Amino acid sequence: MELWFTEKQTPVFGITAKIRETLVTEKTEFQDLAMIDTEEFGRMLVLDGMVMTTVKDEFVYHEMMAHPALCTHPNPKHVLVVGGGDGGVIRETIKHPEVEKAVLVEIDGKVIEYSKKYLPEIAGALDNPRVEVQVADGYMHIIESKNKYDVIMVDSTEPVGPAAPLFERGFYQGIYEALKDDGIFVAQTDNPWFKADLIQRVNKDVKEIFPIVRVYGANIPTYPSGLWTFTMGSKVHDPLEAKESKIPELDTKYYTPRIHKAAFVLPKFVEDLVK
Amino acid sequence: MELWFTEKQTPVFGITAKIRETLVTEKTEFQDLAMIDTEEFGRMLVLDGMVMTTVKDEFVYHEMMAHPALCTHPNPKHVLVVGGGDGGVIRETIKHPEVEKAVLVEIDGKVIEYSKKYLPEIAGALDNPRVEVQVADGYMHIIESKNKYDVIMVDSTEPVGPAAPLFERGFYQGIYEALKDDGIFVAQTDNPWFKADLIQRVNKDVKEIFPIVRVYGANIPTYPSGLWTFTMGSKVHDPLEAKESKIPELDTKYYTPRIHKAAFVLPKFVEDLVK
Repeated sequence: MELWFTEKQTPVFGITAKIRETLVTEKTEFQDLAMIDTEEFGRMLVLDGMVMTTVKDEFVYHEMMAHPALCTHPNPKHVLVVGGGDGGVIRETIKHPEVEKAVLVEIDGKVIEYSKKYLPEIAGALDNPRVEVQVADGYMHIIESKNKYDVIMVDSTEPVGPAAPLFERGFYQGIYEALKDDGIFVAQTDNPWFKADLIQRVNKDVKEIFPIVRVYGANIPTYPSGLWTFTMGSKVHDPLEAKESKIPELDTKYYTPRIHKAAFVLPKFVEDLVK
Repeated sequence: MELWFTEKQTPVFGITAKIRETLVTEKTEFQDLAMIDTEEFGRMLVLDGMVMTTVKDEFVYHEMMAHPALCTHPNPKHVLVVGGGDGGVIRETIKHPEVEKAVLVEIDGKVIEYSKKYLPEIAGALDNPRVEVQVADGYMHIIESKNKYDVIMVDSTEPVGPAAPLFERGFYQGIYEALKDDGIFVAQTDNPWFKADLIQRVNKDVKEIFPIVRVYGANIPTYPSGLWTFTMGSKVHDPLEAKESKIPELDTKYYTPRIHKAAFVLPKFVEDLVK
């Protein structure tokens, strides 16, 4: 008997992956959680039917969420990750020796628990002494923080379910206030093929708050369309002005100093969305 | 009743698209051909179960096959497209006014016939007076051509079925000889997530024949992994040395002078494949 997992990435299009083993299916306090071992991508964390991360391609999302902002900020000592309970962004963040403290605020403790159990290569960094893990509402954490962080990264699910408030203009205003005077934030902002309106709306909102706003992309095979975007808002430092020669050669599989520059070059139809 | 088309991009992973209407399913002399109207991507040409092109995302592949080579060569008068019976690469090619003649050699006349009928926005350019269409074996055409073309583009299916010989070292040698003294060729070379070995093998073969070999990528949602690669072999002109300011702003939706440069910057794991 063959079991296949299918994610409808839109109501009329999806991906399908042969299952080796279903490890967890559980209704948590916040969402439907599944941990599946797939033949092509290895273990896969699925929330509300959407692929969050897989062992085979997780490095792209996690590296590309963390390094562009951390290599743009000259001295990112205090870093906040909102969401990201699998620990992948934290793992990349602590590759930067100047980071003294990385705080993870994940609303769903079950995501952390099962990631530690089934995705240790991703979640292992959550036990690092420089990391502080809080199971709490990231939205509230942002609203209560003032002038506190150098870099804030929003590693949320899609703007349906528990993450919906993390795509609101008021949240970006809160992030602005939670950042120090030369702070930078970055958020995942879905894909330009099926969610052009979201990218455009977030871009407009963030531009009303931050003086420097940049959008970049990365190829993630298990995410809708294979082209994922990230939106960066910055108070002072411009990622486009980061000197390639000053960017460290980190231990990565996707990000390089060359990619730091090239990722901000968008296909014309995406460029037009965020003009 | 819902009908869905599923392509197994690997034996254990695929994409699935809801069908609005099935327009053609036919066994041609060379392959299984289907023309399907899908809800997400519009009309879709499928050969041997693999998506070749769709109305929604075809512009990426066709622009990114044609323009990097045509904008690198200073005066591409005579251009050959091997395969590509849907006409998309030809449509992009004749956007360059210096192209006097573009020859298309497609082995399967049925691909041309059904593309003209069902994909007129892609195949319409095949009727342009600067275009010569031959229904013939591209391999033989290459072997019989000497010192003839400025640019050759290999728009083939995958290296199974009728296109298998188009991925052989002998074919690349034939292309070298079919090109003029400063000629350039480009071929689609699949994706780095599932076909790393193919990219690596082609790269090695082409490097033994051409002094300048470059690999670049583009995001194509309906192709495996969403990241497609192209391998370029050149006798004299280096695409990396093309001046951004000299590249024309063409009427495109993906390619720009900025993309011309950025597309050659590969993720680290792909960079490592073709080092």
